[in-house]
Amino acid sequence: MAGNPIEKLMNPATIAIAGASNTFTTMGTIQCLNLITNGFPGEILPIHPKEKIVLGKKAYQRISDLPYAPDIAVLVVPTRLIPEMVEDFGKLGTRYIIIVTAGFRETGEEGRALEKVLIEKARQYGIRFLGPNCLGIVNTHLPMNITVGPIQDYNGKLGLASQSGTYIAQVVSYLHKNGIVMSKAISVGNEADITIIDCLEYLGQDETTKAIGLYIEGIKDASRFLEVARKVSRVKPIIAQYVGGTEAGARSGSSHTGAMAGPGHLYEALFKQAGIISVESIEDVYKIGWALATQPRLKGRRIAVLTNSGGPGTGIATTCNRVGLEVPEFSSNLQERISKFLPSHASASNPVDLTFHIDMKALSVDIPRLLFESDEVDGIIIHGIMATGFFELLYPAMSNFVHVSKEDLIGAMKIDLDELVSMPERYGKPLLISSFFGNEDSCINTLHTKGIPTFDSPEKAAKAMGALNTYSNILRRLHDVI
Amino acid sequence: MAGNPIEKLMNPATIAIAGASNTFTTMGTIQCLNLITNGFPGEILPIHPKEKIVLGKKAYQRISDLPYAPDIAVLVVPTRLIPEMVEDFGKLGTRYIIIVTAGFRETGEEGRALEKVLIEKARQYGIRFLGPNCLGIVNTHLPMNITVGPIQDYNGKLGLASQSGTYIAQVVSYLHKNGIVMSKAISVGNEADITIIDCLEYLGQDETTKAIGLYIEGIKDASRFLEVARKVSRVKPIIAQYVGGTEAGARSGSSHTGAMAGPGHLYEALFKQAGIISVESIEDVYKIGWALATQPRLKGRRIAVLTNSGGPGTGIATTCNRVGLEVPEFSSNLQERISKFLPSHASASNPVDLTFHIDMKALSVDIPRLLFESDEVDGIIIHGIMATGFFELLYPAMSNFVHVSKEDLIGAMKIDLDELVSMPERYGKPLLISSFFGNEDSCINTLHTKGIPTFDSPEKAAKAMGALNTYSNILRRLHDVI
Repeated sequence: MAGNPIEKLMNPATIAIAGASNTFTTMGTIQCLNLITNGFPGEILPIHPKEKIVLGKKAYQRISDLPYAPDIAVLVVPTRLIPEMVEDFGKLGTRYIIIVTAGFRETGEEGRALEKVLIEKARQYGIRFLGPNCLGIVNTHLPMNITVGPIQDYNGKLGLASQSGTYIAQVVSYLHKNGIVMSKAISVGNEADITIIDCLEYLGQDETTKAIGLYIEGIKDASRFLEVARKVSRVKPIIAQYVGGTEAGARSGSSHTGAMAGPGHLYEALFKQAGIISVESIEDVYKIGWALATQPRLKGRRIAVLTNSGGPGTGIATTCNRVGLEVPEFSSNLQERISKFLPSHASASNPVDLTFHIDMKALSVDIPRLLFESDEVDGIIIHGIMATGFFELLYPAMSNFVHVSKEDLIGAMKIDLDELVSMPERYGKPLLISSFFGNEDSCINTLHTKGIPTFDSPEKAAKAMGALNTYSNILRRLHDVI
Repeated sequence: MAGNPIEKLMNPATIAIAGASNTFTTMGTIQCLNLITNGFPGEILPIHPKEKIVLGKKAYQRISDLPYAPDIAVLVVPTRLIPEMVEDFGKLGTRYIIIVTAGFRETGEEGRALEKVLIEKARQYGIRFLGPNCLGIVNTHLPMNITVGPIQDYNGKLGLASQSGTYIAQVVSYLHKNGIVMSKAISVGNEADITIIDCLEYLGQDETTKAIGLYIEGIKDASRFLEVARKVSRVKPIIAQYVGGTEAGARSGSSHTGAMAGPGHLYEALFKQAGIISVESIEDVYKIGWALATQPRLKGRRIAVLTNSGGPGTGIATTCNRVGLEVPEFSSNLQERISKFLPSHASASNPVDLTFHIDMKALSVDIPRLLFESDEVDGIIIHGIMATGFFELLYPAMSNFVHVSKEDLIGAMKIDLDELVSMPERYGKPLLISSFFGNEDSCINTLHTKGIPTFDSPEKAAKAMGALNTYSNILRRLHDVI
């Protein structure tokens, strides 16, 4: 791992960036802006042919003007300038470069030739580089963000490596809304040098990363991928989307990053052998990845479903069964203890259905405690916890009739979730939440802050629990076989 | 259809409600509040044993005190009071009742007996009723909302009938965030009288409803369901989620509404015969339902994918192939015309990939126009249209360096989407949008207002386009066979 180039790229003390200016619509400028604003603690050295100051930092006209060799360089300049700049950094002594610029292998013959030149120049100076045609990297723990997406959350647990830059950069507000926080993220671009396999190896050993999400258009070295992934899977879960398995997918991937795609079934077999959880949408990479990153391992298949509404409870129960989980009827003893917290006609059987209920304590503390404590339950899914969301909707109507301020009403609805959010770790059982409210609701917001995954469709929570079970099966299999 | 009881329930001039008070945590009060605040244009007559005024309306102590027989009555009172109240409304002359109260068949032997009494009383007076154990109905066109969820959008196109009340009521803010607007919605509860089949028949003939979404835990009369659904499917698409097909799903449904579930494969076969699009999550009922409700029929299988990012474009292309759609390479003629709007290195092949691009005109007007006009394209999916979302994220950082007000910056980013939103109807081809931004972005907000479906994961947009194709296939089959 000492030799893994991502380790170096993720922890620089000094960064040179060529392509940033004071024009706010260019990629380089936005990337440098995020580097500064997202709190990079080291030195930033812009290279600019004309500007003396770029985003408040002293700029250098030429690479050779730099006062020292920066730990890493970021290049966001016209394609034709790249090989020479790599050479200049090589001469200066910089050994790690991120090449954002596109226009290489992915564009055809001429680009392919230029990429070859680039690779040769890098080899000549012992330079390891990411890209070309990538969107940069993120380390939310340093912090350092060299992408176009201004990150909003720090110190996360989900590591990402992606053959699409968008999937680590343009999704920042999407991830924030869903309470998902990256640990490290890498856009690999054309993989002319550093590959997604290097990233996987790095993330596998990175202590801040608890689960790994991959977006894959094609893997060049299947046997090394398999070797690395099997090693990593034994330590932490990997979830991957492969998109090259169809005619249009392969063609699209090829013009995107020049990826070499193969039939879907080959990748399915590869993922299976490698102990990778395979999914078909980027949403699943993020949302299920987040469940894998934050929740304890699922030790058995028995899921408790707790709801304040029959439909979502039934949707969760059905989907649990579909993905190989049980939703067993509880013992009469457990049902009796649960019943104390239920209205008369409500069911304690599992799903436990509180029915329409505005008092949230039973749903968010009293019954969860019984479920976490019970030896009949391996994992818990709750639907319906909310506080301010519903009453903010109702307040405009209510205010016509009751003399209470919005703040007082909303304040009265606040629920203490401290105990609930501590339960997964305390009892060693996973907890997933289904809710039609997003982080506009104070409860969902708290759950996000505390790293409890929430899903905006009941079936998605069940599917994520299924993935936790898949990973437990993978662990059993890998530890038996290897 | 004259005899369909839902028609009457959906269009009353006068509504009596028993169970509303001035206490804001009870269901009945919240339902009455929504009825008033969501703009019901008729008379509302609360029945209350003690209060003289309920939510500003004159209240009547007994049903017999009412000045006339209201068109419909809504009952949200303790279970034991229901049969007598039904009788009292029967004597008064009211013939349509919504029974929200639970505690009947779904709770066991005693409840089953009481439900029988209720049915007999209703028959005696020729009363048709919805429920018991339902959450009411919504007509966004009248408007009338007798549920606990304050609706935020009116005059929609998606009709819903659900064996879970939550799925028409507690989802209001979720639907709003996703730009989905109901036309009419019905929570059917225990279906002791009016069934989900009656609802389907009604929605099939309702002119404001352009597509129908069903949530099903069990169908009692499969042959009538098949007969009605086949008729409706020929006129408008039906999309349904069935959740009773597993052990836990069936048990959960039974304690929820007393539904009689059957194996999943029987329902699959039933849906197939009936021409119903079958899905496995409530999210798909809503989001794909909205695409079916708002977009023109897909006349062929050739989809154009337009993106400003390779990953989402590839995800869309792959998923299109997976769901039976083509993403054909464009003719060189069309590629040439598209290329005029592309940066060098960008691909015009299909997916058309603008690559990272902040100028939105090519993505939202110029290239879409070429695609809609082309006889090589049957449907269009666009990823990446956005305006204010990205710059609102960046503004805090930018404002350290540029002296521009947030309003000016955001204002400068506004895009005119008038032409784009008119294209589906003008050219008779469906348009679906993929974006990681939600309605906090001004473009997404405009698309929502104009009834263009947006999806927060590229694969979902492709899956929805697949459903449009499924419906076209259903139409061909039904019109051939019947």
